[in-house]
Amino acid sequence: MTPAADSIRLYELVLENGCSASPYVWRIRYALAHKGLRYESVPLGFTEISAAFGGRFKTVPVIEHGERMMAESWDIAEYLDSAFPGRPALFAGAAEHSMVRLTEAWFAPEILRKMFGLYALDVHNAARPEDRPYFRRSREERLKGTTLEEFTSGRAARLPALRDALAPLRAHLARYAFLGGDAPNFADYIALGAFLWVASVSTMPMLARDDSLRGWIDRGFDLYGGLGRDPRMHSMFE
Amino acid sequence: MTPAADSIRLYELVLENGCSASPYVWRIRYALAHKGLRYESVPLGFTEISAAFGGRFKTVPVIEHGERMMAESWDIAEYLDSAFPGRPALFAGAAEHSMVRLTEAWFAPEILRKMFGLYALDVHNAARPEDRPYFRRSREERLKGTTLEEFTSGRAARLPALRDALAPLRAHLARYAFLGGDAPNFADYIALGAFLWVASVSTMPMLARDDSLRGWIDRGFDLYGGLGRDPRMHSMFE
Repeated sequence: MTPAADSIRLYELVLENGCSASPYVWRIRYALAHKGLRYESVPLGFTEISAAFGGRFKTVPVIEHGERMMAESWDIAEYLDSAFPGRPALFAGAAEHSMVRLTEAWFAPEILRKMFGLYALDVHNAARPEDRPYFRRSREERLKGTTLEEFTSGRAARLPALRDALAPLRAHLARYAFLGGDAPNFADYIALGAFLWVASVSTMPMLARDDSLRGWIDRGFDLYGGLGRDPRMHSMFE
Repeated sequence: MTPAADSIRLYELVLENGCSASPYVWRIRYALAHKGLRYESVPLGFTEISAAFGGRFKTVPVIEHGERMMAESWDIAEYLDSAFPGRPALFAGAAEHSMVRLTEAWFAPEILRKMFGLYALDVHNAARPEDRPYFRRSREERLKGTTLEEFTSGRAARLPALRDALAPLRAHLARYAFLGGDAPNFADYIALGAFLWVASVSTMPMLARDDSLRGWIDRGFDLYGGLGRDPRMHSMFE
């Protein structure tokens, strides 16, 4: 039994196949596992988020702990460290925290954005049928009217650029087991969360069969009793 | 007086104007200042390195501390933390160490390599006259026969790509004073060292006048009594 921990709820985004549909939710799933905290999962479709929180939050993850509710993965991660100081820290100190944010400042525009450019239509098609019109409308609005089909057309030709952009991870992981070093840290959870998001929807394997990232991906998906292992997911590898 | 510290020697690379000519030396200058260690600087020209160490080391920085001598900026930084545990640590722990290496795994190919593509000829022209033939020969060999002039021709057209590649630093520094957070860490020294290397040789300002990196560059150059301030250097800004 984990005192207080039982009262944690994690509001997630769910696809038709039951997988979690957000790289940001995945970070918090890993963060909760890292801290050894149990929680109740509350799956929501894309169209249910706004109503579930009376308009207070527009994105998940949202975490509920006793009377506290909050969104935004970084706020949640920091809250978990402050609310559960006796459990393994997500951030050993201010410098690690800042360095992980710097990693994300590179990862979000260079990797995550490229992933969206390849898999946006796959996300749409994997969403619950009742969520698809909303997903299409909201994303195509952001794309200034470009359809998801146009946006992702010829995507295979853009795979090499995404694979190339992952070079810093390969260089680092030639030396370390995890981005965090010998043990995984929040930088691993950010990157693994993005890979798991792709694996949940992908109809085109993202990585070459012999990509040296495979060892780290396997280690990462195996963490915490195989948190990232789900037979409903697609392989990351050709 | 700093016990034992007086016996530290830092072998550096020197340009005709007397500035230090290596981004890797600059990291160690900052690292020594971070730890409050005094040292004797031994400037060497490009062609003097091999003879100075009887062929044992081919690159600087090289540090000498008592009977120990070692090259490679990462080995030196780790050595300084282990040899002077009572002084401010460069790495608060294994996770920070690993995160800084990840930062470098991005910075070296994405930023430093692009800088070399713009400033290789400037480095040549700023070297001591007696070092220039060696610098040209060794670099053009690596470039498979492309001359430094060919390599850097039309460089102004490649400035925007370099400036764009710095976007993760800008995003991070919109939130933090330093890459390390409230205080500078080895990630700052890696990046500042590259900027100082450019500033030592540049005949083309690297950054736009209104680049938001200016605040951090100024703070970084001002550290440790203005370690990065040298009237012989060129401005980073248009």
